[in-house]
Amino acid sequence: MEDTRLADLRRRLAEVADLEKAASLLSWDQQTMMPRAGAAARAEQLATLRRVAHERLASAELGLLLDALVDREQSLPPDSDEASLIRVARADHEKARRVPAELRAEMTRAGSLARNVWLEARARADFGLLLPHLELNVELCRRYADCFEHQGSPYDALLDIYEAGRTGAEVQAVFDRLKAELRPLIATVLEHSEAVEHDFLHGYFPPEGQRGAAMSLLELLGFDPASWRLDPTAHPFAMSGAPTDIRITTRFDSSHLTESLFMAMHEFGHGLYEHQVSPALWRSPLGRGASLGLHESQSRLWENLVGRSRGLWRMLLPRLRAAFPQQLAHVELEDFYRAVNRVELSPIRARADEATYNLHVILRFELERELFDGSLAVRDLPEAWNASMENYLGVTVPDASQGVLQDVHWAAGLFGYFPTYALGNVMSAQIWERALEQIPTLGDRLTPEDIAALRDWLGERLHRHGRKLTPRETLERAVGSDLDPGPYLAYLRSKFGEIYGLQLEPAAA
Amino acid sequence: MEDTRLADLRRRLAEVADLEKAASLLSWDQQTMMPRAGAAARAEQLATLRRVAHERLASAELGLLLDALVDREQSLPPDSDEASLIRVARADHEKARRVPAELRAEMTRAGSLARNVWLEARARADFGLLLPHLELNVELCRRYADCFEHQGSPYDALLDIYEAGRTGAEVQAVFDRLKAELRPLIATVLEHSEAVEHDFLHGYFPPEGQRGAAMSLLELLGFDPASWRLDPTAHPFAMSGAPTDIRITTRFDSSHLTESLFMAMHEFGHGLYEHQVSPALWRSPLGRGASLGLHESQSRLWENLVGRSRGLWRMLLPRLRAAFPQQLAHVELEDFYRAVNRVELSPIRARADEATYNLHVILRFELERELFDGSLAVRDLPEAWNASMENYLGVTVPDASQGVLQDVHWAAGLFGYFPTYALGNVMSAQIWERALEQIPTLGDRLTPEDIAALRDWLGERLHRHGRKLTPRETLERAVGSDLDPGPYLAYLRSKFGEIYGLQLEPAAA
Repeated sequence: MEDTRLADLRRRLAEVADLEKAASLLSWDQQTMMPRAGAAARAEQLATLRRVAHERLASAELGLLLDALVDREQSLPPDSDEASLIRVARADHEKARRVPAELRAEMTRAGSLARNVWLEARARADFGLLLPHLELNVELCRRYADCFEHQGSPYDALLDIYEAGRTGAEVQAVFDRLKAELRPLIATVLEHSEAVEHDFLHGYFPPEGQRGAAMSLLELLGFDPASWRLDPTAHPFAMSGAPTDIRITTRFDSSHLTESLFMAMHEFGHGLYEHQVSPALWRSPLGRGASLGLHESQSRLWENLVGRSRGLWRMLLPRLRAAFPQQLAHVELEDFYRAVNRVELSPIRARADEATYNLHVILRFELERELFDGSLAVRDLPEAWNASMENYLGVTVPDASQGVLQDVHWAAGLFGYFPTYALGNVMSAQIWERALEQIPTLGDRLTPEDIAALRDWLGERLHRHGRKLTPRETLERAVGSDLDPGPYLAYLRSKFGEIYGLQLEPAAA
Repeated sequence: MEDTRLADLRRRLAEVADLEKAASLLSWDQQTMMPRAGAAARAEQLATLRRVAHERLASAELGLLLDALVDREQSLPPDSDEASLIRVARADHEKARRVPAELRAEMTRAGSLARNVWLEARARADFGLLLPHLELNVELCRRYADCFEHQGSPYDALLDIYEAGRTGAEVQAVFDRLKAELRPLIATVLEHSEAVEHDFLHGYFPPEGQRGAAMSLLELLGFDPASWRLDPTAHPFAMSGAPTDIRITTRFDSSHLTESLFMAMHEFGHGLYEHQVSPALWRSPLGRGASLGLHESQSRLWENLVGRSRGLWRMLLPRLRAAFPQQLAHVELEDFYRAVNRVELSPIRARADEATYNLHVILRFELERELFDGSLAVRDLPEAWNASMENYLGVTVPDASQGVLQDVHWAAGLFGYFPTYALGNVMSAQIWERALEQIPTLGDRLTPEDIAALRDWLGERLHRHGRKLTPRETLERAVGSDLDPGPYLAYLRSKFGEIYGLQLEPAAA
């Protein structure tokens, strides 16, 4: 009897998972392959898929089935696959049934349509073009948040989509600590960093050559063409059609040598997380990363802790030199290492170095909170953005395409998403600290075997568990403690201190 | 009141259409983009999408809604968009509700998995590898046909999927006429055709060059990158994600100059049909071609009536010569025209000339009928295939990859599909005859304006009506009569008679 019910649950959840994966594939296609005139029809198709998936997840039948499985769940260890499946499915069901399917569909449709408008608005640096779409997105998100009125502020309801169980206040506290430490650190490092030579990173690098370099790098990290692909896109992202079908993307800017490589490493980190989820969890709500923050911990780990390390470039620079001999023939490892770690004040998040990156994120997080506590109107975003950029980084934004329009997230209707990048940075250093204990050879003499060991360790410690536990529990199991900016700040002090021969101290509490 | 019901019907049908289009996109992706390890998950996703679409189409609620709309339907002209929508939706619903959703899902899953096995079986010329999958496909198709037991033979039920309203016996009669005429015609033409020079079509033609030539050709025909894309694949096909999102594919065989071009023109014909359906019919069961046979009439029209014409190559040969100067510098239009119309005995359907092509199809149709009337076992297919190839074309099949494994259809579970190719040939000439009456300049002096006029005429006469009428009615409205092999046979006699200075006579009745 119990087994039939559990089988029924699995079947229903597998169907929802299939519909969601189909939607992911349609979204990937929209951003990489779709002829542009297909946008309106694609928005409808995505809305239908999300609505049908939502209806099935929110259905009364699923609720009754979950009720009937309470005893079964309680008879099992809470972290067993089965108990976790029932528990997580119940939480997802409870959340879904508060949200009307039509609202879910409308959010999808609006975000999908606005993505294409964003491409044009950014190209023309015209915020006004995107404004009505952003206003609609904010309005729809507010209606979404209203469904969870009883639980906290509107912004908390949005954050909960991406980082379940965390609140805006908790994130603000972490970010306040980061701000207090990073602003003086950046000021000190900048005095030395701005003079670092980096001309060789700029010039003309044909996209085919960049693609070859990216593939060579990715294969070193563990990209296997049998299960992965790499494509160019406007705003890089990773998508998993299945753990055996990982799509990553990057952007080939012919004027910059390494941007495409760091973006590829970032998306590789996302892809690897999905690729290494335990097969027992596939086609279920447990078969993906535990949260976006944990996802970002993986993308930022590969992009920065591995990607901006001396050890990686010791292996990779000779290959890159062979691909671009004219520009790199005379560049030594140490110069290259310093160049890719050069701290500079730039208006663009996606190109930011490790020290300034978090301020770009904090700025967005604070603006989002103001949008949803009602203290900031959407039409005033550009001005608020520019003021905040001036305040945190001393950067004057040249135009909206390098300001408020640079990222796709808000156009796509993703509010509450940005903070996960900085939470990911924080967690990446916590995880790296533990990895170093187990694989002490991860360092300046990095080898392909170390990289394989790191993949395996991450798989064992984090990836294979998928979404069985809450983000907080998942982090605690992986590193032994909750969110803590300490290791991240210590890593930055140590790294930049070593590069410039400085003794960087923690800020006074 | 009525309007609410009609709006409800439209909404439900739009949802089904969206789910079907999503499945089409997943299938396109599987054949062009998907990493191969994704196959198992993709089969499940496709099965889920088809099952959910099927359930919605077969649902009792939809049935009640259609019942309630009977009066409305009868108050409207039968060929109005609304009456057609209600009528066609009812027919689709009646058909769907006879078929268990799980069978529909299983057919999709089995076909999707077998596609990948087919790739390997063909590469290894190993029929045994594919055999269990084919046996499963046949078994599932038999179960499908059982759902329509009351209506005729099992094969008729399968044919009805692709060419609604036609029977195996009706098709056999048309094919008997073709056989009787084509076998003597081929024998006569071969005496002259085999000596035709065609060496310049063979050699080494880099895929990038072929792609450039294909794009140049397609843009001449009306391919607009805002709504279309072209990709390489193993077995070319066309897919419409929406009338504004047309995906066509071809195969670039580096040893053959024109195969990729004729395949591209073929798929262009399919794509154009979907592209020109009236916007009023989008997101409904009427928003696509009326049948596969009519679809093939369009693909074969562009591939052959346009594609193998002197007029097209008068425009295109100079461009092709510029792309491949070494091979084509000294090739004159007339020699090229004769080479691409060379009749020869080959084991491969997809490369067959216009005269022998239909025998390839008839062979498959007859084997399919034997499979489903029980007189042929799946395991005996290769032998039966080879014997029939020897009988109809005098060709000895070198191995299974050039025999029974050459086409993907049966692996994909598509039985009853093949005859539509030859029906398409027959209809293409009926349509062409009418087009020539309206656009008499379609001929040896073809211009881009004539091509545009042909597109418009096809759109007006055929494409825009989508699936409003039955295949038979659709043909009758377009050409004024039902299926008639006369114009096709007359076209072949006239074309090959002119090329070789022969007086080709109809066979005695």
